[in-house]
Amino acid sequence: MSSIEFEIVEHIGVLSENAKGWRREVNLISWNGRAPKYDIRDWAPNNEKMGKGITLTEEEFKKIAELAK
Amino acid sequence: MSSIEFEIVEHIGVLSENAKGWRREVNLISWNGRAPKYDIRDWAPNNEKMGKGITLTEEEFKKIAELAK
Repeated sequence: MSSIEFEIVEHIGVLSENAKGWRREVNLISWNGRAPKYDIRDWAPNNEKMGKGITLTEEEFKKIAELAK
Repeated sequence: MSSIEFEIVEHIGVLSENAKGWRREVNLISWNGRAPKYDIRDWAPNNEKMGKGITLTEEEFKKIAELAK
């Protein structure tokens, strides 16, 4: 078994929540002790399990905001 | 083999490009003929191959923009 260490450095916000209580969240996460990155991902209640998601640099994250205007 | 049909309805923007020419794009994509959704994903040149990504509702996409301000 391999393991991935991660630390949720900042909870930025919740995009949505489904009927089972999983939330699609935006967080600032440090993976394996590296510098934190922006992360859009589905999470079970209390961040106990994680689903699929995407990790973004700060530049990419800010660019999305421009595109969504 | 299974197949997924998709149509890129609108190219919204490019978030970044790596050394191999893959781009991280935001598009409006219709999957299997369904209503189009916002999609953040890595793509090979000319959208010939797709990498991992995340599909978002319009509400989720707009929410990211608010959070990134």
